Order: sequence, then C-alpha cells, then structure tokens
Amino acid sequence: MSIASPSAKSIRKVRPASARVSADRESRARRALQKGQQTKLAIVDAALVLATQVGLEGLSIGALAEATQMSKSGVFAHFGSREDLQISVINQYFSLFERDVFYAAMEKPRGLPRVQALFANWMKLVDEDIQAGCIFISGAVEFDDRPGPVRDALAASVQTWLAAMNRSIVLAKACGHLRADVDEEQMAFEIHGLILALHYEARFLHRPGSVARANRGFENILARNVAPNQS
Amino acid sequence: MSIASPSAKSIRKVRPASARVSADRESRARRALQKGQQTKLAIVDAALVLATQVGLEGLSIGALAEATQMSKSGVFAHFGSREDLQISVINQYFSLFERDVFYAAMEKPRGLPRVQALFANWMKLVDEDIQAGCIFISGAVEFDDRPGPVRDALAASVQTWLAAMNRSIVLAKACGHLRADVDEEQMAFEIHGLILALHYEARFLHRPGSVARANRGFENILARNVAPNQS
Repeated sequence: MSIASPSAKSIRKVRPASARVSADRESRARRALQKGQQTKLAIVDAALVLATQVGLEGLSIGALAEATQMSKSGVFAHFGSREDLQISVINQYFSLFERDVFYAAMEKPRGLPRVQALFANWMKLVDEDIQAGCIFISGAVEFDDRPGPVRDALAASVQTWLAAMNRSIVLAKACGHLRADVDEEQMAFEIHGLILALHYEARFLHRPGSVARANRGFENILARNVAPNQS
Repeated sequence: MSIASPSAKSIRKVRPASARVSADRESRARRALQKGQQTKLAIVDAALVLATQVGLEGLSIGALAEATQMSKSGVFAHFGSREDLQISVINQYFSLFERDVFYAAMEKPRGLPRVQALFANWMKLVDEDIQAGCIFISGAVEFDDRPGPVRDALAASVQTWLAAMNRSIVLAKACGHLRADVDEEQMAFEIHGLILALHYEARFLHRPGSVARANRGFENILARNVAPNQS
C-alpha cells in the first residue's frame, strides 16, 4: 500500500453517508442473491422430478414453468441454456445419490459392512426409482452417442459413483474380509448388472420378485468373494 | 355347393375373355403386392438402422424418407401410423434377434451347450449393438412409463426372449447338466444383468474390458449352478 492510499478507516470517516448506502446495497444484493439461489434450487428440484419421468431430453421450458408456476422467461433467467439446466439436474441427482447411498454407507465400518451398506442403499434408491425412473439409466440411453457437456456430466457422475463402489471393495479386500484374489472391477461390474437388471425387469417388464432376485444375486456374488474365515 | 351354382370349369368356358382379364389383374395385383411388401421391408430395415441410433421415438418421417430416398407421403403410405412403423421396427428387430441368437443356438444339443450358445450369441449381438445401440434397451427407457401398443410390442418381444433363455436353463436342469436345486429365474436374471452391464459400461462409459467381464461373470454363474458331475 502506498503512503498516499487512504485507509479503510479514513474512508468511513470521510464518507459515512455513502458507506451506509453501500452497505444497504450490499445487503439488498445479498438477499436478492439468496432469493435467486433459492428459486434456482426450486426450479432444479422440479426439473429433477420432471426428468425422472420424461428423461433429460424431455425437459421443456413450458412444462417446467407450469410445474414451478413461473413464467417461461422467469425459469430461464436462472440458466444460461437448456444444457445448463440439464447439467444442474444431473448434479442435483448426484448430490442426492451421494447423500442417500454413499455418505449413508460411510457410517458403517470399512470392509464388508460398508460394501453391504452401499449395495443396500443403492437397492433402496433403485426401488424408489422403479416408480419414478432413474436418470443415470435413462440418461445413458439418451446421451450414449451424443457427445457434449451433458453426456460428460452424466458419465462423470456415474463413474465417480462406480469408483466409490470399487474403492469400498478394495478396502474390504485390504481388511481381509474378501479373498485375496478378488478382482474388484469384476465384482463391481457384476453388482452393477444386478442393479440394471432390477431396474429393467421391475420397471419395464413389471416382473414380480425382481428385488428378491437382485438381493439374492448379491449374496451369490458375496459367497464367491468373501474370505473363507468370514463366511 | 348348390345345383344352380356353375362349376369353375363352366365359368371358364362361358366367359373366357373376362377370365383372362381377371387372371391378368390378379397377376398384376400380386406383383404390386410383392413390390409393396419389398418396399415396406426396405423402409422397415432403414427405420431399424435409424431407431438403433436415435431411438424408436427418434424415428421421423423426414429422416426415414431421406434414408430411403422416397417422398414422405411415399414412406407413410406403407404404414397406417407412426405407431405401426415403430411396432414393425420392433418386430423386425425381434426377428433378427431370434435368427441370430435363438435359432442359431437351437442347432446345439439341449442342455448346457445350448445355454452357453444362447449367451455367446447374445453377447455377440450386444457387442455389435455397442456401436449401434439396442432397441430392447433404449426402447425400455423410452416406453417404460408410456402404456400403449408400442410398449406392449416391445415388452412382449423381450419377454418372449427371456422366456426362451429360461426354458433352455430348465432343459439343462432336466438333462442333469445343472444342479437339481437351480433357481432358473434367478439364473436368467443374473445373466440378463451381465448383458445390461456390458451394454451400459461399454456403450455409455466406454470402459475397456467390459466384454471380458461379462464373459467371466457368466462363467461365475455357471460355476455356481453346474451339476457336480459336469464341472
């Protein structure tokens, strides 16, 4: 700071009125920002509900405006583009997924209990999604051959989640709960298959018994991979 | 036939000219019908290619007319509605699936070899579909909560196929190739999961090694279910 530069204190002393105006403005701006963020979050929540029903590509300005009882221009003032909206929805879905599946399982001790909790929480979420639809599954079909930021955001979310599942298996092996020769990637792949089969057979084919089959499939995978002293 | 009714021979004798005209008409009608059927088949083939890329819902008159180098009205003269076109595409996909997966496996002896052939043929098709997309998977997402004839046609196709897979497992058990306590529905569910995981991880996530993981997953399922004297 140069000598000529006035201190913050001297500015407050010299221009008290303008400082009050500035503080008022700041406070109003902060409130407006908070309100804007709350509105944006409410729109994203409504968009997520809509997307699980009609897919990310089914998100329309009109339907979303109707769901939030806002004007179309009001809805889109909060997003730079439809793509931004889609990515916000993916991020929001991932946050909920992370909270309900991942963080909830982190409360369990590492090793087999955590792997079991991750699967149980995932199953619970998919069970709810059988009614509502899962954007990790519908989005994969919508964007599988459409490169771009929406596909990237979706793939990154799923990959982060699968990596977390994989890490929990690696830890369970390191703890000695799983056999030393377990192929973690293989085990995670087979578990992913059970979740996808459950979603497909229950949601699309309406086949009874799918939840029990997914659970039994998981037990079968564990039986093959659990260390001999654990079973 | 009543006595008053003239025989076919007497008709030919009495009205030879009109009979010739009628035969000509019939022949022309038959040729026109054949040509119409060929054109329809060509449109369905083009529609199937398009549907694997953009989904059944992505089928548009314009894109299909362009692909077949026909007029829009020409394309739709062959189908009563867009729904009819979608159902024709599903039936065509199922026919090809049946030929390449099901009938090809029927050449193998019943029992374990046929179950293995069904899985191997299915894998081969999914491996091709990783590039092109599979309408049994994308269609399930598109129509999972949209009741109607297209959803019904799609679900019926998939169910017919899963029932065939199931039947082959029942036969393998009856032959003594699989353990007596094998739960066929469970085994079919787990196999379906491997196929879905392969499609998801290879097509959407571009993960290398997915084909090998699906194959190894199948070996793991067999190892658990094969009769002791077979392994």
